[in-house]
Amino acid sequence: MSMIDRLIERPAKWLAGGKGQDEMVLSSRIRLARNLERVPFTNSADEATLTKVREDVEGAVKECFSMKGSLVIGVSDLDDVDRNILVERHLISQEMAKSSHTRSLVVQKDERLSVMINEEDHLRIQSIESGLSVGKAYKRIDKLDNELDEHLRYAFNEKFGYLTACPTNVGTGLRVSVMLHLPGLVHNKDIGRVIDGLRNMKLTVRGIYGEGSEFMGNLFQISNSITLGLSETDTVSNLEGHVKKVLDFEKKARELLLKKARTLLEDRIWRAYGILRSARLLSSKEAMSLISAVRMGVGLGIITDISLPVLNELLIMIRPMHLQKLHGRLMNPEERDRVRADFIRARLDRNEKEA
Amino acid sequence: MSMIDRLIERPAKWLAGGKGQDEMVLSSRIRLARNLERVPFTNSADEATLTKVREDVEGAVKECFSMKGSLVIGVSDLDDVDRNILVERHLISQEMAKSSHTRSLVVQKDERLSVMINEEDHLRIQSIESGLSVGKAYKRIDKLDNELDEHLRYAFNEKFGYLTACPTNVGTGLRVSVMLHLPGLVHNKDIGRVIDGLRNMKLTVRGIYGEGSEFMGNLFQISNSITLGLSETDTVSNLEGHVKKVLDFEKKARELLLKKARTLLEDRIWRAYGILRSARLLSSKEAMSLISAVRMGVGLGIITDISLPVLNELLIMIRPMHLQKLHGRLMNPEERDRVRADFIRARLDRNEKEA
Repeated sequence: MSMIDRLIERPAKWLAGGKGQDEMVLSSRIRLARNLERVPFTNSADEATLTKVREDVEGAVKECFSMKGSLVIGVSDLDDVDRNILVERHLISQEMAKSSHTRSLVVQKDERLSVMINEEDHLRIQSIESGLSVGKAYKRIDKLDNELDEHLRYAFNEKFGYLTACPTNVGTGLRVSVMLHLPGLVHNKDIGRVIDGLRNMKLTVRGIYGEGSEFMGNLFQISNSITLGLSETDTVSNLEGHVKKVLDFEKKARELLLKKARTLLEDRIWRAYGILRSARLLSSKEAMSLISAVRMGVGLGIITDISLPVLNELLIMIRPMHLQKLHGRLMNPEERDRVRADFIRARLDRNEKEA
Repeated sequence: MSMIDRLIERPAKWLAGGKGQDEMVLSSRIRLARNLERVPFTNSADEATLTKVREDVEGAVKECFSMKGSLVIGVSDLDDVDRNILVERHLISQEMAKSSHTRSLVVQKDERLSVMINEEDHLRIQSIESGLSVGKAYKRIDKLDNELDEHLRYAFNEKFGYLTACPTNVGTGLRVSVMLHLPGLVHNKDIGRVIDGLRNMKLTVRGIYGEGSEFMGNLFQISNSITLGLSETDTVSNLEGHVKKVLDFEKKARELLLKKARTLLEDRIWRAYGILRSARLLSSKEAMSLISAVRMGVGLGIITDISLPVLNELLIMIRPMHLQKLHGRLMNPEERDRVRADFIRARLDRNEKEA
């Protein structure tokens, strides 16, 4: 059984949610960019250096109590499908999947904590939690960062803070991002203004698969873009504050929708559920949009026979690489649409039987 | 309990179908136009005359063995909803619903045989059967016609045959019509040519609710337009022959669809079923179109957990007047769309539980 097989055996912990999880917030994610002192950055280092970096960092991670029992995945040795499985699970970046350097990923089996080695920076440490839990995610990543600091010498400058390959990460090297589900604001067309407002606050807004990805499934990733001149805790609480405002807007948009066009909304939501349960062909985009409608239905208490973890799990499992991995072979888009529809139907049927 | 309530208690027999019923043929219907000798036609007679006609014909119908136990419904005394219930059940024409003369309907409880009194003609006798059963329908109506002939004096001319209010009915006064379900020909866009061909053969092609009605739900009513110079049995077998050719075209269109785009077709069919089972708002037109897709699915063996009688029944029960009757009050279109969706869901749920 390969490392990837072991990883995809079950959904990541952050998809399973917790009690009282807010449907409007899918996840909270934090990553820290770190580099080793007196070692060239990944893109300017030779392979021998990068191999040494990889060995040193993997060795250090193994020593950390926070990472006990984690999997070490040699990303360089994987084929394209497996590498993109890691992208679809939000464990490595698309750049890291495509790069040609020696590189690896150390990841806890529940996927809440992970370390990318030889991405743009020597280390990209990531912590990911269900719902709006930036504080919790920060606490976990800070602990791991401190542990690693005991075994590695980070490139650090008294004036600038942590040194990173890209100047935008210099300082704390911290990026906080929260994945929001905002169908109400998309529906009432206020989303453009909300995004503009966030960007004016120096926040970044992206789709579910990062830079350049479409806003599929009404999912929006909001993150800080400044890492210099602001403490870690300020960055975290700052972002949390803005997110809460966006959530208020979303709630109001939904309330208005319910008040003005309840039946129409219920119709849209139930049709989406009906199509997910019966279609024989589903593109990734349509599936995401239908899941979004059902998700809102769950959030509004209109649909009660499906839980958020099942919907969260679907968001990942219906991605092209996951489908191909499960199916054991590469498929053309039409085949994938068929297999995707089959997978969704089977998952919702199982859900119904368990209910 | 009113006559209308007694009538709508259960679906008409012709909707319940028979074994091996062909999904492509909904029903076969025959009607005979008859008038009383030496009595002015309905539109030129005074009310006293029409009252006498009504009494005489009702009296005669009661004497017929074929009509034993039938209901006598005073159409003139009904309100608009009840009159249109009869239209929706194909028991009276829209003209008869709107007319201001004294008029009535005598109908067998199973609705297979009926007599409209003081429609355009003094008598319009109707026989309706499931599937392609024009011969059977003719046999039943011919028997009733003979029985009535013993009690009434029909206006008949040796040269022209039966005399009727409209010259197009002179002769046999016979109209045979078959209701076909032709989604394959609609999908491959051959339906226009098929209709043109039928019209060249002096056949009439109409939608499910007769003249001027839209072609909803891919349903097409094909009937003869000539009643003079052709015997009853020739008219019947002639139409049956043309219908069989159309059915061959439809079969070929479906085979090609299955061969060229099976998954796409299955997807369309299952989505239609999924939407019917989950929507909260359904217009008459959309519902008919979805039922048509499911019906084809049943015909092709793609959907097996629903029977044709249930789909047939839905076609009638989701009409505006039936919905309002069931609901006990008049509703605006949006309310009707909601009640229609509720009715369909409940009916399909019940079907699932019974299966």
